[in-house]
Amino acid sequence: MSRTSQRPALAVDLGGTKIIAAVVLPDGKIVSRHYCLTLAEKGPTAVINRLLSALSRATAQAKLKTSELAGVGIAVAGILRAEEGIVTTSPNLPRWRDVPLGDALSRELGIAVYVINDASAAALGEHRFGAGKGVSNLIYLTVSTGIGGGIIADGKLYSGADGCAGELGHMTIETHGPQCNCGNFGCLEVLASGTAIAKEAIRRLTQGERSSMVELVEGRLETITAETVALAARRGDPVAGEVVARAANYLGIGLANLVNIFNPELIVVGGGVSKMGNMLLGPARRVVRERTFRLPARTARIVRARLGSNAEMMGAAVYAYQRQLGQNKET
Amino acid sequence: MSRTSQRPALAVDLGGTKIIAAVVLPDGKIVSRHYCLTLAEKGPTAVINRLLSALSRATAQAKLKTSELAGVGIAVAGILRAEEGIVTTSPNLPRWRDVPLGDALSRELGIAVYVINDASAAALGEHRFGAGKGVSNLIYLTVSTGIGGGIIADGKLYSGADGCAGELGHMTIETHGPQCNCGNFGCLEVLASGTAIAKEAIRRLTQGERSSMVELVEGRLETITAETVALAARRGDPVAGEVVARAANYLGIGLANLVNIFNPELIVVGGGVSKMGNMLLGPARRVVRERTFRLPARTARIVRARLGSNAEMMGAAVYAYQRQLGQNKET
Repeated sequence: MSRTSQRPALAVDLGGTKIIAAVVLPDGKIVSRHYCLTLAEKGPTAVINRLLSALSRATAQAKLKTSELAGVGIAVAGILRAEEGIVTTSPNLPRWRDVPLGDALSRELGIAVYVINDASAAALGEHRFGAGKGVSNLIYLTVSTGIGGGIIADGKLYSGADGCAGELGHMTIETHGPQCNCGNFGCLEVLASGTAIAKEAIRRLTQGERSSMVELVEGRLETITAETVALAARRGDPVAGEVVARAANYLGIGLANLVNIFNPELIVVGGGVSKMGNMLLGPARRVVRERTFRLPARTARIVRARLGSNAEMMGAAVYAYQRQLGQNKET
Repeated sequence: MSRTSQRPALAVDLGGTKIIAAVVLPDGKIVSRHYCLTLAEKGPTAVINRLLSALSRATAQAKLKTSELAGVGIAVAGILRAEEGIVTTSPNLPRWRDVPLGDALSRELGIAVYVINDASAAALGEHRFGAGKGVSNLIYLTVSTGIGGGIIADGKLYSGADGCAGELGHMTIETHGPQCNCGNFGCLEVLASGTAIAKEAIRRLTQGERSSMVELVEGRLETITAETVALAARRGDPVAGEVVARAANYLGIGLANLVNIFNPELIVVGGGVSKMGNMLLGPARRVVRERTFRLPARTARIVRARLGSNAEMMGAAVYAYQRQLGQNKET
């Protein structure tokens, strides 16, 4: 092991709403943590400036200089050319088109910057420090506003030819299903994400079905979220229960596909919607058993993520360490 | 490199109809080749005996003794525990349930025997010697009676926790689709395989639609195969054309899922149905472009396999070499 790999890394989760920056040690210890709003609507340059300021604050809080860091890892939602540090498009960051985020930051900071898809980062984070410790073949699925994924194959992140593998939310499971934000039809995301759950509840209530959800949102149906549906379902509301069951069925089909494709030891489900717990994962696990081959079905455990909202940031740190190590090996 | 790895390997494709056994050099040169019928209906023990006799004939033809071989690689359709050499079930081999094929053969032969899924083997074969030479991230899809797959990730075969990853034909792409042989519903296999193509043509003709296919099979609709449909479609038969278009659309959706999931450089399509060529792959490629993210869609080339019916056997040889090398490293 080189000396560089013992140094702390700067890790960032660049989200649509907020930026979390932290100094993280190789063993996962968080030395300092700073967060601020992204203000994504102000566009790429403004966001990059806020990012730089968050980074310098986290570094200062840890009483470190930039030169003492092993590198910077940044988790971003979207389609990235990971090797080149380019954000080609992002669902959370309007007007980001082929932004060379890695280069822009490393020029300012004078150290190596590594950019990684947020769900891939969360997969790395859960694999190293969370629910997937010690597992060789792991699939991470984040179910929140959208659905993203990360693939750990034979102990390593699999990122594909351009670095954008793992768009597990955009596999079609219903050929003639509704159109997804990505342009495709019947994607897992458009059928089982938090957005899909809220939309389906609103659709049913707009058609006049009776449900306690109407009171929960004081009649303003458009404010219904997946949390509203989860709360009502937990209290026994039949419509809410059916909406959750529908999403769980689709989620189960998506998970079943992943079991047949990857024969993983573990599928880790994270993201806000996963907080529904067994109300969602119980039926989904049953669907997996019904729809997959017996051997991989017996092997694949399906569990909730452990690192919560730190997963992306922790994974970005892991990624920075791994890339840094790879570079040291090459030179 | 150890001396062992320079020796020839015995490679076998154990199919439902025939057994192909060959002696293969590390550079892919086939020294001898022997084939015989499987007579699968006679059950596991009889098949294993025929296999042993095919192996000894191929070895004798090459003027070699078993002890001069690096090992034996056997490609078999089905769900395997690859590491343990166990065939848990096979669609082509009736009454094979948890058969310890690897152990049974290595006891008789006195050398190492490695068992691999046939589509995984074909992926290895095409990767090393065929359409995928020099490619790091490759997906192999075989479209014939059924649909199977193999995954090359970062230059290596990905086989999952039990060794049964890559069941790409059994991802659901139509939630409420027809039931597949595997028990699942709306699998790619039940919508786009050769069997599915023949079935759909028969269904339409049975309903009274007029088509030149009826004459092609002299009225015996039950004898229609995917080849019949392909032939009629090529001659301009509209019903046959629609049946092929339907399968191509489903195939395209399956390929689109693979592009979004794996971001591969290359997808190699093999198997009998792939002989339809651009009549099938042209529309499928269009579907891929429409349904995937631009970055991975631009990268992924979709091409026909090159090794034909040798792919599985050649891949079994590659697998034997790789496992043998791995063993030598460990000891």
